[in-house]
Amino acid sequence: MRVLFTIQYLGTRYAGWQTQSNATGVQQVIEIALSTLCKQPMRIEGAGRTDSGVHARGQRAHADLPIQIRPRGLLLGLNDLLPADIRIVDVVPVADPFHARFDASSKTYVYQIWNDSVAEVFHALTYAHVASRLEMGRMRDAAKALVGRHDFKSFTVAEPEVSSTTRTIKSVSVESEGRKVWIRVTADGFLRHMVRRIAGSLIEIGRGKLPTDAMRDALEPTFAPARWTAPAHGLVLENVEYDASHRPGPPESADDKMTAEA
Amino acid sequence: MRVLFTIQYLGTRYAGWQTQSNATGVQQVIEIALSTLCKQPMRIEGAGRTDSGVHARGQRAHADLPIQIRPRGLLLGLNDLLPADIRIVDVVPVADPFHARFDASSKTYVYQIWNDSVAEVFHALTYAHVASRLEMGRMRDAAKALVGRHDFKSFTVAEPEVSSTTRTIKSVSVESEGRKVWIRVTADGFLRHMVRRIAGSLIEIGRGKLPTDAMRDALEPTFAPARWTAPAHGLVLENVEYDASHRPGPPESADDKMTAEA
Repeated sequence: MRVLFTIQYLGTRYAGWQTQSNATGVQQVIEIALSTLCKQPMRIEGAGRTDSGVHARGQRAHADLPIQIRPRGLLLGLNDLLPADIRIVDVVPVADPFHARFDASSKTYVYQIWNDSVAEVFHALTYAHVASRLEMGRMRDAAKALVGRHDFKSFTVAEPEVSSTTRTIKSVSVESEGRKVWIRVTADGFLRHMVRRIAGSLIEIGRGKLPTDAMRDALEPTFAPARWTAPAHGLVLENVEYDASHRPGPPESADDKMTAEA
Repeated sequence: MRVLFTIQYLGTRYAGWQTQSNATGVQQVIEIALSTLCKQPMRIEGAGRTDSGVHARGQRAHADLPIQIRPRGLLLGLNDLLPADIRIVDVVPVADPFHARFDASSKTYVYQIWNDSVAEVFHALTYAHVASRLEMGRMRDAAKALVGRHDFKSFTVAEPEVSSTTRTIKSVSVESEGRKVWIRVTADGFLRHMVRRIAGSLIEIGRGKLPTDAMRDALEPTFAPARWTAPAHGLVLENVEYDASHRPGPPESADDKMTAEA
């Protein structure tokens, strides 16, 4: 019985999704809870890795259960065993060939900024503090250049196992409410540090330290790597999208509720 | 030069406002930063103590500075030295006889509840999780009995140094938005655990485990202590109010902004 989990976590305490030599990953913590519940060693397959300190509101992972268990009971049982900074928010049965990572059509990340001279303690773990005033108009203008199929070489760190640095960004938005600013990016895939470098450059543009066309220039393959990498703790994996043909049930409504509340 | 600070903190890591034998208090952390800035040992006088794990959005404290320094410079200088979970959000000069504690006319606490079958990681540090559905109408009806001058003996723990357990509650409200529920209490003073016991009883009433008139009964002096103490991490000291004659400048607008955003 294959199931797909929708997972929230506060990344502050973790090495990221995957366990590193010196720290525990979120994946391992969930695997331990699932193994306890299933009374045998269990693995889960995530839709993608998140780096150390990065959070998730809608990470996905699938698992093959050796037992028949109702999704609702599995959700409550796992949450009983998990620490408070990891929550299973949805469990749906999926057909056996469904794969959390390979069947994902896109992912959405949001980069969260607290834009005020003084930071705010209740958002300090999940919002990056930017004291200089950000001009939304400049950031929105610059962000337009990112949409489409581009070589994002200058927005990543060299990784030998990644064969291509070309990705397609489906949408970018820059929104604000009070002192909160959100940079939301949906793409068919993301390179390491890609959203944090996009956010870092947009922040420099918003502060007026870079011209608005700096983003278009940075997409030229000859351009030097973008130097501004926004800190990990402002980044949230918001959602993993699947095509209708692969859609594993009705998680959209749950996601909408989640997003509206967060 | 006497100044009044408005202070925010996430209480998770602290022994409370005051330092305990085994853990650091928020007061001490601010005193160390202020001493560094003033180049001599400094003390601050808080408007009131908060318990271990309790947060503040509008704690107040005054200090006598040995140097002339502009409030804005002091605010930015202190925030540079303070950890991210403590922020000075306002500094105003006050007349010498002004006292953060003795001149306070009332305080407002808010008890924060996340009311859903599954808790939410991004609010787990500052909202108490209640899985059973809470009926707002029942809680509001019960809360009415609290307003006015009462002996709150059954809502506190015995403390030899407290001579009277009579306090005046000026207002109580129970509000909700989505899955968030806020119990807000303004009183001329609070006994130890008073808001947490009020919240604990209101939760039992909201779940239908206690009748709505249980709150009125609990105010009878012969009543046994209220047994339900809601956990510390849902409690926030929202504001300390001062009479117009003692009002130390314009912190109200800052507080409003804070409250609207939080």
